[in-house]
Amino acid sequence: MKNTKKLTGIAVAGLTLAAGFAAAAPKPEDSVEYRQGVLFAMGWNVGEMGAMVKGDAPFDAQRFAFLAERTAKLSPMVLEGFRPDSKGAKSHARSRLWDNMDDFEKRMKTLEEATQKLATVAQGGDEGAMKKQFGETVQVCKKCHDEYREKM
Amino acid sequence: MKNTKKLTGIAVAGLTLAAGFAAAAPKPEDSVEYRQGVLFAMGWNVGEMGAMVKGDAPFDAQRFAFLAERTAKLSPMVLEGFRPDSKGAKSHARSRLWDNMDDFEKRMKTLEEATQKLATVAQGGDEGAMKKQFGETVQVCKKCHDEYREKM
Repeated sequence: MKNTKKLTGIAVAGLTLAAGFAAAAPKPEDSVEYRQGVLFAMGWNVGEMGAMVKGDAPFDAQRFAFLAERTAKLSPMVLEGFRPDSKGAKSHARSRLWDNMDDFEKRMKTLEEATQKLATVAQGGDEGAMKKQFGETVQVCKKCHDEYREKM
Repeated sequence: MKNTKKLTGIAVAGLTLAAGFAAAAPKPEDSVEYRQGVLFAMGWNVGEMGAMVKGDAPFDAQRFAFLAERTAKLSPMVLEGFRPDSKGAKSHARSRLWDNMDDFEKRMKTLEEATQKLATVAQGGDEGAMKKQFGETVQVCKKCHDEYREKM
C-alpha cells in the first residue's frame, strides 16, 4: 500500500493545486465557489426546462425528465457550501442566512423534496403535471433567493 | 394551464436573470461557468477524499462513500459544458480539445466509469480497495488535464 499511497498523494496534490482548493479543509472562498458552482449547474438545467415551459424551446418530455433528474441530484449538494466559516467571504449571500441557519436548512430540504418530486413527476411524462411541478419548484428557488440572496 | 404558464414564466425569468444565463440557449461563457462549476464541485468531493487517502484527515469510510457517490453523480454532467460554440470562450481548456472531441468524449466516458466504480467499491467499505480505486480515478482526471487543460 505504501507505493500506492505515495503515487496517489502526488496525483492528488497536482489535482488539488490545479483546482485551486486545499485538500484538508476548504478555504471560505472555496466554499463560495463550490456552492456557486452547484447552483449554477442547477440553474443550467432549470433554465433549459424553463425554456420549454415558457415555449421558447420545443417541449421534449424525455429531455425534461433528464434535466429534472440532474436537478434532483444536484440540490442535496448545495447546503454543504454554506459552511459557517464562509459567512464573511465575498458572495451574494446575505449574512442573515447564517443567523437563520435552521430556516435555511429547512428551505434546502424543501428544495430537495421539490426537485425530487419534479424528477418523479417527469418520469410519468404528463406535460401539464411537469409544468405545474416545475412552477412550484422554481417558487422554492425564488423565495429563498428573495430571503437570503442580495438583489442582483 | 394558461395561468400556471404565465406564473411560471415570470418566476423563471426572475431566476434565470439572477443566475446570469439565457434560458433558450446558453451563451459560450455560460457553458464555461457551467462546466467549471461542475468540475469544481467534483474537485470539492475529490479533495476531501484525497485528504483521507493522503492521511491529512482521518479515514471515514462512510463519508468517503458519500463523497464517491456524489462524484459519480457529477461526472456525467461535465461533457455538456464543452459545447462547440464555447471553443473560443475564455477558459483553461486548450482549443485542441474541440479538434479531438472523439478522444475527449472517450475520456469523459472513462471518467464516468472510474467514478462509478469508485462509488461501488466504496459501498464495500474496504479501505485498501477504496484508496486504490481513488488513485486510479485521479489518474483519469490528471491525464485529461495534462492533455486538454492549460498549465495552471
